[in-house]
Amino acid sequence: MDLSIIGYDPVGAWSKTADTVEGLLQYRNPGGITWINVNGLERPEIIHELAEFYHIHPLTVEDILDTEHRPKAEEFTKYLFVICKAMRGGDESGTEFEQVSMVIMENTVITFQEVAGDSFDGIRKRIINDAGRIRRMGADYLSYALMDSIIDTYFTVLDRQGNDIEQFEDRAMDERDDNFIPDLQKVKQNLQHLRRVIWPQRESIVMLQHLDSPLLSKEVMPFLKDLQDNLVQAVETVETYRELLAGVMEINLSSMSNRMNKVMKVLTIISTIFIPLTFIAGVYGMNFEHMPELPLKYAYPITWGVMILIALGMLGFFKRRHWI
Amino acid sequence: MDLSIIGYDPVGAWSKTADTVEGLLQYRNPGGITWINVNGLERPEIIHELAEFYHIHPLTVEDILDTEHRPKAEEFTKYLFVICKAMRGGDESGTEFEQVSMVIMENTVITFQEVAGDSFDGIRKRIINDAGRIRRMGADYLSYALMDSIIDTYFTVLDRQGNDIEQFEDRAMDERDDNFIPDLQKVKQNLQHLRRVIWPQRESIVMLQHLDSPLLSKEVMPFLKDLQDNLVQAVETVETYRELLAGVMEINLSSMSNRMNKVMKVLTIISTIFIPLTFIAGVYGMNFEHMPELPLKYAYPITWGVMILIALGMLGFFKRRHWI
Amino acid sequence: MDLSIIGYDPVGAWSKTADTVEGLLQYRNPGGITWINVNGLERPEIIHELAEFYHIHPLTVEDILDTEHRPKAEEFTKYLFVICKAMRGGDESGTEFEQVSMVIMENTVITFQEVAGDSFDGIRKRIINDAGRIRRMGADYLSYALMDSIIDTYFTVLDRQGNDIEQFEDRAMDERDDNFIPDLQKVKQNLQHLRRVIWPQRESIVMLQHLDSPLLSKEVMPFLKDLQDNLVQAVETVETYRELLAGVMEINLSSMSNRMNKVMKVLTIISTIFIPLTFIAGVYGMNFEHMPELPLKYAYPITWGVMILIALGMLGFFKRRHWI
Amino acid sequence: MDLSIIGYDPVGAWSKTADTVEGLLQYRNPGGITWINVNGLERPEIIHELAEFYHIHPLTVEDILDTEHRPKAEEFTKYLFVICKAMRGGDESGTEFEQVSMVIMENTVITFQEVAGDSFDGIRKRIINDAGRIRRMGADYLSYALMDSIIDTYFTVLDRQGNDIEQFEDRAMDERDDNFIPDLQKVKQNLQHLRRVIWPQRESIVMLQHLDSPLLSKEVMPFLKDLQDNLVQAVETVETYRELLAGVMEINLSSMSNRMNKVMKVLTIISTIFIPLTFIAGVYGMNFEHMPELPLKYAYPITWGVMILIALGMLGFFKRRHWI
Amino acid sequence: MDLSIIGYDPVGAWSKTADTVEGLLQYRNPGGITWINVNGLERPEIIHELAEFYHIHPLTVEDILDTEHRPKAEEFTKYLFVICKAMRGGDESGTEFEQVSMVIMENTVITFQEVAGDSFDGIRKRIINDAGRIRRMGADYLSYALMDSIIDTYFTVLDRQGNDIEQFEDRAMDERDDNFIPDLQKVKQNLQHLRRVIWPQRESIVMLQHLDSPLLSKEVMPFLKDLQDNLVQAVETVETYRELLAGVMEINLSSMSNRMNKVMKVLTIISTIFIPLTFIAGVYGMNFEHMPELPLKYAYPITWGVMILIALGMLGFFKRRHWI
Repeated sequence: MDLSIIGYDPVGAWSKTADTVEGLLQYRNPGGITWINVNGLERPEIIHELAEFYHIHPLTVEDILDTEHRPKAEEFTKYLFVICKAMRGGDESGTEFEQVSMVIMENTVITFQEVAGDSFDGIRKRIINDAGRIRRMGADYLSYALMDSIIDTYFTVLDRQGNDIEQFEDRAMDERDDNFIPDLQKVKQNLQHLRRVIWPQRESIVMLQHLDSPLLSKEVMPFLKDLQDNLVQAVETVETYRELLAGVMEINLSSMSNRMNKVMKVLTIISTIFIPLTFIAGVYGMNFEHMPELPLKYAYPITWGVMILIALGMLGFFKRRHWI
Repeated sequence: MDLSIIGYDPVGAWSKTADTVEGLLQYRNPGGITWINVNGLERPEIIHELAEFYHIHPLTVEDILDTEHRPKAEEFTKYLFVICKAMRGGDESGTEFEQVSMVIMENTVITFQEVAGDSFDGIRKRIINDAGRIRRMGADYLSYALMDSIIDTYFTVLDRQGNDIEQFEDRAMDERDDNFIPDLQKVKQNLQHLRRVIWPQRESIVMLQHLDSPLLSKEVMPFLKDLQDNLVQAVETVETYRELLAGVMEINLSSMSNRMNKVMKVLTIISTIFIPLTFIAGVYGMNFEHMPELPLKYAYPITWGVMILIALGMLGFFKRRHWI
Repeated sequence: MDLSIIGYDPVGAWSKTADTVEGLLQYRNPGGITWINVNGLERPEIIHELAEFYHIHPLTVEDILDTEHRPKAEEFTKYLFVICKAMRGGDESGTEFEQVSMVIMENTVITFQEVAGDSFDGIRKRIINDAGRIRRMGADYLSYALMDSIIDTYFTVLDRQGNDIEQFEDRAMDERDDNFIPDLQKVKQNLQHLRRVIWPQRESIVMLQHLDSPLLSKEVMPFLKDLQDNLVQAVETVETYRELLAGVMEINLSSMSNRMNKVMKVLTIISTIFIPLTFIAGVYGMNFEHMPELPLKYAYPITWGVMILIALGMLGFFKRRHWI
Repeated sequence: MDLSIIGYDPVGAWSKTADTVEGLLQYRNPGGITWINVNGLERPEIIHELAEFYHIHPLTVEDILDTEHRPKAEEFTKYLFVICKAMRGGDESGTEFEQVSMVIMENTVITFQEVAGDSFDGIRKRIINDAGRIRRMGADYLSYALMDSIIDTYFTVLDRQGNDIEQFEDRAMDERDDNFIPDLQKVKQNLQHLRRVIWPQRESIVMLQHLDSPLLSKEVMPFLKDLQDNLVQAVETVETYRELLAGVMEINLSSMSNRMNKVMKVLTIISTIFIPLTFIAGVYGMNFEHMPELPLKYAYPITWGVMILIALGMLGFFKRRHWI
Repeated sequence: MDLSIIGYDPVGAWSKTADTVEGLLQYRNPGGITWINVNGLERPEIIHELAEFYHIHPLTVEDILDTEHRPKAEEFTKYLFVICKAMRGGDESGTEFEQVSMVIMENTVITFQEVAGDSFDGIRKRIINDAGRIRRMGADYLSYALMDSIIDTYFTVLDRQGNDIEQFEDRAMDERDDNFIPDLQKVKQNLQHLRRVIWPQRESIVMLQHLDSPLLSKEVMPFLKDLQDNLVQAVETVETYRELLAGVMEINLSSMSNRMNKVMKVLTIISTIFIPLTFIAGVYGMNFEHMPELPLKYAYPITWGVMILIALGMLGFFKRRHWI
């Protein structure tokens, strides 16, 4: 668990880390924007200290510590509280979700990351190195940039899922693939998890736009609208994937049943041809003393001829009915 | 059926029980908060007496006594009326629901429990022993705390259901499990019961937030919002379980049909190979007097050879078509 | 077709019948509440006379006479018009619906019953014998009481349906029950009819609450809300039954297919064991002159031994693959 | 293509036809109501002339000439524009739709019929012969009456469809009916066409009620509400039919599969009984020189006995398992 | 990539092309309407230059360059931004989408086409040659005309899809068509792509109508409503096609299964008839020394007779059960 603080204004920017909350808070940037990042949630007392200092509601603290919470945005008297979910993975080993909570105040943003990681490194660098738009704008734009970098992880994961699904299209026609259905179910469940995260994420962004909070300036609104567009696109991608999977499933079922039908037809035809012939052979294998055909000279070749005629007749019958 | 009354204010708290309504009402706490709990609904006259004393509408009394009522929240002139459902069980023996009705007045909360039990013991102890938030806040917070403890029972039941469903994933591939579908249907129905309870519970909490009633203070609103979040999470869990069951069902169907197809294929192949051979044997079992092959010296081994060739040819044909 | 009129106020109540509209109207109760009931719709001229006297819109008269109309509530300048559907039956012979139309005016309620019957006898008795709430309240409460008695018939019918559905659960596993699917479809259609009636009934009650009509007093609102709750419960019961039927259907399908699979497997196994043995017997039934095995002394028992070994081997193979 | 004009007021009414627009317009009825009917759309120049005279928007003219347009209602500055669809047929030869466009102005209604026909003859006669409600009311009531006569055609078509669907219930159990599914699909598509027409028709009527246009008087509103009720009933009938078809389909599938299962079972049983017996006969047909059973005196009847015992044993086994 | 500019007013019109943005901008038409078209997006710097000149928001530029964006309409302070998708193809090789972005300002429209093409040639000619409505109206009507020409491409594609789907109706009954399901899935996915484009296109047109922007005059509103109607019709066509495909799929499944059932029945019948006869032949092929039937004179013809009787009896049994 580590604590980092970044202060910036249009003119300059600096970054510090600390071990204690007091140590951290002395670096606050009263004239500019302050971004505090809490990496990992192993020491709840640190979160409680921060909450006390910034007058954060106990329910918000509870939500920060409950890493199973679904994405949401809530307005409190002095701050906005946003829960996001970053994604990792997306290949066969499944998708992992990391909860990132944000408290957005007047000139301060506090972020709480479930897992210590470097997801925000890009933004950190943009702030420190680059005197661009992010430095000129307020805490609301910073929180937008953070949400944007979180939502970008969705598209990485969705791309990987897309590749997976393409493989299923090839596997759909392979009848010896016993794991096809269970594997497909896993991907399906994974997609449902994604949708469960992306959809409330979209709702929370929509809610932020409708809040009419003084903490969100007019300039940041088009950016939030853009995030919303991205999330709608992500939801649509998930829907497209689900439909692709449903289609693949249908192809698989129909190909299985087609193949089975063909196998059965071969059996039908071979059996149906030989069973009557075997019967004829059985008849002339009977041991009655008085069977007039037995002593005839050409009985045997005639029998063969009859049997061949029957076989050809049946083949013709099946052919005419398009069974072969 | 027993009657208990708890009175408290930020300074102190006490708890009493009584056998009659008059006996109970003398313990009322005019300066602070009064919580009356009616355990069991066997003696309707007691509820009628209470209703008369507190001017509770006859329809409310009817609803309290009708234990099949779905969760709801209603505003009356002097009080709010809330019906909740607590859950028990969740294992194979199914889920039991207990109706808990609440009448929330200015400084008084009356709760009616369908079954005498100890579900509210935790809150009782918190009030008596612990001079915390619950003692400082009003009757609305008490009712929140009671609803919270009821909604907590949902997650216990949902966890047990989750374990059950995991077992179904293992059973899905076992074809000898004749009870798979009926058992799965039972769990499915159980989940539908849960949803039928959780969804209106959520609606009633949402309604309480929108009522704009003077009985619900601004401070208690974030707590109600939190309850709502929990219930949404519970609904989503139920949905996830339903999708898991649907997936398990699909795996089961496909595994059954796969297995059946394989069994049928074995039959196809064995029959298809032996039927023509049996025919050949039948031919040379005929008793015609003039069969030129019969006296030949190597006829028998040649026949064997032909039969083996036919068998191998068919095996090769099946192999080439990927039927084996 | 008979005409009856009831007049009451908190002090007294009386009931009359008449053959003509004029005869009926002389009994009106100008100081209190008047309830006119028209039993049967065979004589439209009577309805037209009443309509003219009470200034009822021609479209309302049309709706009263069209017994196929769905439940609705409509506001006209001087009256509210409500169409309800009472239910009868619910057992195998299906459900019958009876249309009851109500015109609710200032101090007068006129009800039109499609079929002459005694559905309102209970209310008639309560008015005449019992100086209770119904006598103290206005025409709006009377119309509530009438609707309540109509909606009560839904639960009787739903209970009978519930018993029917329980029987289907037993029949689901019985493969010789050829009428299972058609019978189940009948119950399903019956449930859809119920839903088609109950849902607009609920809508009409909701509409009455939102009309803000001076004809509906504030005191009657909680009672209408209660009706709405009952109808929601009825709709949910129908939904539960539909889901139960869907589950029963799935159990039936899976049990049929399971059983069929087992039968097929027995065939597979018996055929697969005997076909090769029959081939061997066929081989030694051939009449070649030079078959070295035939004269051997122990050829016959050895053949038996080989055949038994093959049979056991195959049984073992099937056992190992869990086919038996 | 013919042009007709009807003028009326409470006192009198007359009807004229003309070949040219000028000829037609001289018959206008400035003091009363004028109804112009254009029968057939073969001469667009006539419609353009009328549009110019009455200041009809070019888009309205486009919509009148595009006979594939879905029903709608639109408000323009000086008129309301309504597109309706009349229906014809409904039997096996399918349903035909005729577009009828209406321009509703202050005291004038212009109707454009796609196909020359006599659908409005009834209304024409009511206006000419009968000094009833239609003569006393304005152009809005005339347009209601026209829409009513169009919507009446829906119920004729729906009745025919209902008869068709009843026949499907009988055909569902007949396995030799190869056209069952394609025919059922045709009816299903037909129903979807109906729904595609009825639903926007309902929307357009609802829209007319919400327009709050001075062209629609208060008196005509209950009549529009009545049209809406009728259309809701039509939509519900379509839904009921679709559910009936789904039920019939399910019965058909289950009856097919039941029958197939029974046929397969007969095969199973006959094969399973005779295959072992044939094996025994095969054994004693072998030509080994040393077979101790062959010379025994009672070997033959004993063999028969054994075979009969085996057959009976298997029949008993199948019976006990309820396979027969 | 080429840049073209068209200027016009009711009196005259001219068209120019340029290589650079400065070269282009000198041709602006301050008194009338200016339409700038950017063909191809290969040189983003040109778009950035234009954006700077016209004060276009960076997010708009991003959206113009992201050719995967879904259709939308957005209001900015000085302009409206619309993303449309033109369609091409629709035959077996699939559908291609071309993004066309529009920036609609006071008297200027800028369009950005993803692919250099001639889709707007028709409008260009109408402006240059024809002093009609488009010349008399403003930039809003121009943007309508452009959107109209884009939406027209949808109907071309939908018509081609319709032809494709008709072919599937013929292929549905052909059991040897192994590509039926995969081909059908492709068309289904194609339709879903179309819907994914058409639906948000409709939403964006609706949004434009509700924006109440000064950039859109009252006169252009009926034209936008007309576009919306067209898009609703396009969506309905897609829905109809999807239902047709679902119906075709059902016909295919049922025809496959019907055919398979018939093949199986033939097997059943032939096997069931010959297996008992073969058994009888087997019995009289046994080599017991004491078989009383063997020496009888008419044993052989009697056996034949019995066998024929058995065969006929079984045929009759199957006939009576309607299996043949």
